Amino acid sequence: MIHSSQKIDEILGAIKKVVGDNKVSLHEPNFSGNEWYYVKQCLDSTYVSSVGKFVDQFESDLAHFTGAKHVIAVVNGTSGLHIALLINGVKPNDEVMIPALTFAATAAAVKYCGAIPHLVESEKKTLGVDAKLLREYLLANTEIRNGQCINLLTNRVIRAIVPMHTFGHPVNVEELLSVAHDFQLRLIEDAAESLGSLYDGKHTGTFGLAGVLSFNGNKIITTGGGGAILTNDTSLARMAKHLSTTAKLPHRWEYAHDEVGYNYRMPNINAALGCAQLEQLADFLSQKRMVFQSYKEAFSKILDVSIFEESSRCKSNYWLNALILDESLVPIRDGILEATNRVDIITRPIWKLVHHLLPYSQCPRMNLDIAESLERRIINLPSSSILSNK
Amino acid sequence: MIHSSQKIDEILGAIKKVVGDNKVSLHEPNFSGNEWYYVKQCLDSTYVSSVGKFVDQFESDLAHFTGAKHVIAVVNGTSGLHIALLINGVKPNDEVMIPALTFAATAAAVKYCGAIPHLVESEKKTLGVDAKLLREYLLANTEIRNGQCINLLTNRVIRAIVPMHTFGHPVNVEELLSVAHDFQLRLIEDAAESLGSLYDGKHTGTFGLAGVLSFNGNKIITTGGGGAILTNDTSLARMAKHLSTTAKLPHRWEYAHDEVGYNYRMPNINAALGCAQLEQLADFLSQKRMVFQSYKEAFSKILDVSIFEESSRCKSNYWLNALILDESLVPIRDGILEATNRVDIITRPIWKLVHHLLPYSQCPRMNLDIAESLERRIINLPSSSILSNK
Repeated sequence: MIHSSQKIDEILGAIKKVVGDNKVSLHEPNFSGNEWYYVKQCLDSTYVSSVGKFVDQFESDLAHFTGAKHVIAVVNGTSGLHIALLINGVKPNDEVMIPALTFAATAAAVKYCGAIPHLVESEKKTLGVDAKLLREYLLANTEIRNGQCINLLTNRVIRAIVPMHTFGHPVNVEELLSVAHDFQLRLIEDAAESLGSLYDGKHTGTFGLAGVLSFNGNKIITTGGGGAILTNDTSLARMAKHLSTTAKLPHRWEYAHDEVGYNYRMPNINAALGCAQLEQLADFLSQKRMVFQSYKEAFSKILDVSIFEESSRCKSNYWLNALILDESLVPIRDGILEATNRVDIITRPIWKLVHHLLPYSQCPRMNLDIAESLERRIINLPSSSILSNK
Repeated sequence: MIHSSQKIDEILGAIKKVVGDNKVSLHEPNFSGNEWYYVKQCLDSTYVSSVGKFVDQFESDLAHFTGAKHVIAVVNGTSGLHIALLINGVKPNDEVMIPALTFAATAAAVKYCGAIPHLVESEKKTLGVDAKLLREYLLANTEIRNGQCINLLTNRVIRAIVPMHTFGHPVNVEELLSVAHDFQLRLIEDAAESLGSLYDGKHTGTFGLAGVLSFNGNKIITTGGGGAILTNDTSLARMAKHLSTTAKLPHRWEYAHDEVGYNYRMPNINAALGCAQLEQLADFLSQKRMVFQSYKEAFSKILDVSIFEESSRCKSNYWLNALILDESLVPIRDGILEATNRVDIITRPIWKLVHHLLPYSQCPRMNLDIAESLERRIINLPSSSILSNK
């Protein structure tokens, strides 16, 4: 195995060119703006909970940044996806098309609605769902009855499609919108990883009927825990706000709720952090791009691997860099993970495919050869914006 | 209506003796301890999200304060109830006994599990579920088959009972434990309002198989948004932690999830606030008791109303004071609400009974005469701990 260990050393060396020799995490937040100032203001106001000026400000700043007409801030991306599915009419026993290659939250949100995730093949070029293969699959396996897409095998309604912009790289939005239109699917974007990413100059999360962002600690900006629902539809926005704030009817003193609501509102103290973070997002985006460039350069002369790069028409936020191994290097993937993590340079493989997780093992699915191959071959690299200083 | 308006003035006057003449909210947080110091520490550490020393500290401080063996901090009380029901085996189509007189979250959490809330009558003495009437009702309407309590009318399993300690006043814990035992019901305490309340010297939330606290902005201590699950059962604690942290299996780099998990973990920045708040809880409890004493005195000479007081064997945290009107004053309840809120002294009626809310209108239920009467007669009064300074 001399060849293997040389290759591992070579890859470790290239990573170190970017991140240095010291301990480095996969992502680290960067609080160099008004974080203290806004959070202190929030504490001093005593409005730390679900009502307050920072939540309103954060929503309005996000709307401005993304171009979405409406933004509803919630406790995390998962809760945002849950609400986005509910307001789009996803019901128990519906099917929802989601990528096989995604974080478990996409599938979990579908399950929360009592619906069934139906797994879609990946596209090498974007790491997202393959819209063309999806079209062929739907053509062969579904028919439209009374304006609904029916899975001919299960006889269930396929209600929606939830593409995810993997590591910040936009999916093929144009083709996907066309598939959603032709097959009467509600399009909801899982944009948890792609704040700041554009397709044809337009922000991810604003193409579908709703889009969902995440501000978890590992994301490009963080609110501790947090997420947001984007939509251009005023009626959907109203439903999202209502459902995520316990479905309480407005009244000066009465507590009446007209639906089974959720306690999903982002607290003001978390939004205060978000307002400060958002002010720095343009800088973070440049820094992330610099980190990507450094990896690209560091790996440019190494055979059988590549650093994943944005597609044409897309501008990625480069949230999380991905090293793609050729099939020939699959046997040393765990060796690379071992060698990097051993010296506290944190790396990880891409998520296991959804149907490789126990609770989703029986989910209906397309042929997933590409997704299976990507699952074996992708390693995520440390990508904090602060690495651009190295 | 001269009599009515005189009575309303008399009541408004009594409230003003306690709260003064100025604008006053129902609850206001009190940040006079280490809040800023800990939150700043948290920001400086960059660990603001779901992992960090303050979450661990907050859990351990809460365990110490309540005497619970295990504490799992979550994003809010509602999510805590959801997890507490799941780990106690509540399944779709089960029934769960809950008070008719409670905040909508108790019912919503049951619905999240796909289960059906079954409404229990209230007890005047505690404002909680009436354990004796519940026993009679279960005797007449259920039977035990294979160790499960079966509702003879619906043929569904009644899996659990979720008492709620109303406004911080403990329910009749002893009798309720006995009912839960005799009818094979899992006892889960909704202690969202009762942090610091004791029954026979033991903390509410630690009698059942699990108990749930809330740290919403209106509670006796706040984390912005937050909650916690208490349990003395190590196996339930492990399940609660696992389910509330996306059901991820521990591994150095792999992302595998063996159940449909939830993103319910309390972020570290919110826990930092909680650690500071908890240090002051003993003070808040004395202050709250003083506010109650002031109301009691202010209303001592007013006929046909009373300020709700803790029962024997109970020590209430007096989270939220309640003015109880005699039936004769029900016609002026809205007049009192109007007169107080008009001058920005915020009051509100008790919640609508669960079956008076649209999504729960068809829930099975006991005779609810007492609950119906309490619903008409209770007005909550401003109860912030800072009012003790007046």
